[in-house]
Amino acid sequence: MDFITVLDFTGVLVFAISGIRLAAKKKFDLFGAAVIGFATALGGGTLRDVLLDIHPIFWMRDLRYIYLILLAVPLTFIFRQYLVKFKTPFFLYDTIGLALYTMIGLQKALAAGYGPTVAIMMGMITAVAGGVTRDVLLNEVPLIFRKEIYATACLAGASLYFLLEHYNVPQVWSISITTIVIITIRLLSIKYKLGLPVIKVID
Amino acid sequence: MDFITVLDFTGVLVFAISGIRLAAKKKFDLFGAAVIGFATALGGGTLRDVLLDIHPIFWMRDLRYIYLILLAVPLTFIFRQYLVKFKTPFFLYDTIGLALYTMIGLQKALAAGYGPTVAIMMGMITAVAGGVTRDVLLNEVPLIFRKEIYATACLAGASLYFLLEHYNVPQVWSISITTIVIITIRLLSIKYKLGLPVIKVID
Amino acid sequence: MDFITVLDFTGVLVFAISGIRLAAKKKFDLFGAAVIGFATALGGGTLRDVLLDIHPIFWMRDLRYIYLILLAVPLTFIFRQYLVKFKTPFFLYDTIGLALYTMIGLQKALAAGYGPTVAIMMGMITAVAGGVTRDVLLNEVPLIFRKEIYATACLAGASLYFLLEHYNVPQVWSISITTIVIITIRLLSIKYKLGLPVIKVID
Repeated sequence: MDFITVLDFTGVLVFAISGIRLAAKKKFDLFGAAVIGFATALGGGTLRDVLLDIHPIFWMRDLRYIYLILLAVPLTFIFRQYLVKFKTPFFLYDTIGLALYTMIGLQKALAAGYGPTVAIMMGMITAVAGGVTRDVLLNEVPLIFRKEIYATACLAGASLYFLLEHYNVPQVWSISITTIVIITIRLLSIKYKLGLPVIKVID
Repeated sequence: MDFITVLDFTGVLVFAISGIRLAAKKKFDLFGAAVIGFATALGGGTLRDVLLDIHPIFWMRDLRYIYLILLAVPLTFIFRQYLVKFKTPFFLYDTIGLALYTMIGLQKALAAGYGPTVAIMMGMITAVAGGVTRDVLLNEVPLIFRKEIYATACLAGASLYFLLEHYNVPQVWSISITTIVIITIRLLSIKYKLGLPVIKVID
Repeated sequence: MDFITVLDFTGVLVFAISGIRLAAKKKFDLFGAAVIGFATALGGGTLRDVLLDIHPIFWMRDLRYIYLILLAVPLTFIFRQYLVKFKTPFFLYDTIGLALYTMIGLQKALAAGYGPTVAIMMGMITAVAGGVTRDVLLNEVPLIFRKEIYATACLAGASLYFLLEHYNVPQVWSISITTIVIITIRLLSIKYKLGLPVIKVID
């Protein structure tokens, strides 16, 4: 199992656990919690594969994604007391996941023959559509539409990737730089409480 | 028209009517009610076909599914006074539908070349995703995430199916036993008010 | 760029701006507003292409759709004071868009080899599913399920199209008449405050 796979699977586990905790707070039962964990961790990639017409969907081809969700439910239960203290590592992993999913989505779109614009969108969808699906199922307004720089970090990073590519930066560098930039933007936006502006409407 | 088709179509009608009644309670108009009926009865199978990349989607190939939804709207209107008394037969049919849809989804995934894990998930999605879509469109927290043993009955039944298959039980028996087990679990869970546990989170 | 393309693109812009304004009212940030604009303007066509298995999805093949959404965000910001006064032209364009999207969806389904029933449904989905997705993401009950004759105008127009076709009316006429009928039904329903009936349920 290479480094990327380890990051990917850890990301799935972290996203699933964070979704399961939100579901538990809303008094969802174990099944409901598992569905929310699934939606949070695998929803973005599922939408990407459906839109790009890539079949089998990634978690149908590699069943370990499903098993990770099933594992996340008892893990959340067993470690529920400790998870509260894990806020910082959780946040860091969420950020790494954000960057990683963006790059995976982007690469999948390029491999399917699409250009930069569609690839950037697919990177962003992979990274954020799971959280949006989770919030819709929890019957809440999607968090990322109102708070903090989140999807914007994906957009900025994914755009930078193509800029670097344009200047013939070797791929291993362009991927690394992009990933670091996404993580940095996200960390800085949290540290300095930065958010995107809101349009003031007059009615 | 064979026995399975009769059960299937009756199930669609029953699911559609139950959705239309919920829509009417929220003061949806006839169009809104028809959409909710459609989502409730055909939403799960639609998601399954999209995920499995089976085209045409089942209700595009067999238009009778669409006509059943269109039939359900006036039926709900005409029999609105009697439907209140039909709680028990409605509940029974909902349960039969649950079992039947699970088996249909499971068989479709197997026919598409997938193994047990994906087949169990597709069985469950066929059975429950329609109700989830209905609740999202009604702007409510999906009922099955919080109450009663519902999807769990599908999961248990679908898993049993593969256990029986593993021991070379003839298919007609494994399908029958599985269907009966799903219905029994559901009926017992209602009779004894059983539910899945909820994870208590500490924040 | 032919007349239909001009109408199509203007329709996308108008739908996107109306979605962005609703998002701004709910204090969504610029990213959230762009997603709502995208969902409103392109969500219906996306669902249609996924259901019909038409790939690449229309906005992946013609990137100008994406650029129009990105253009709609600053336009809404810059002209926010004037947009309030544009209620009537906005409403007219929304109505033209409704008719146009219905016809585009209908034609796409026919071109994919489906018959009238599926074509009528795809026309309707193209025209209304974007607004439904917008309302789900805004965490509100979809407006068109409760108010005014909207989808019904699509249904009536699309059905009329096949009636005219049945009597061998030349296509240029059947499309024109259908479009005018959809617009007229919508305008009359607003003028006379017509709505569909609601089923009264007894519980």
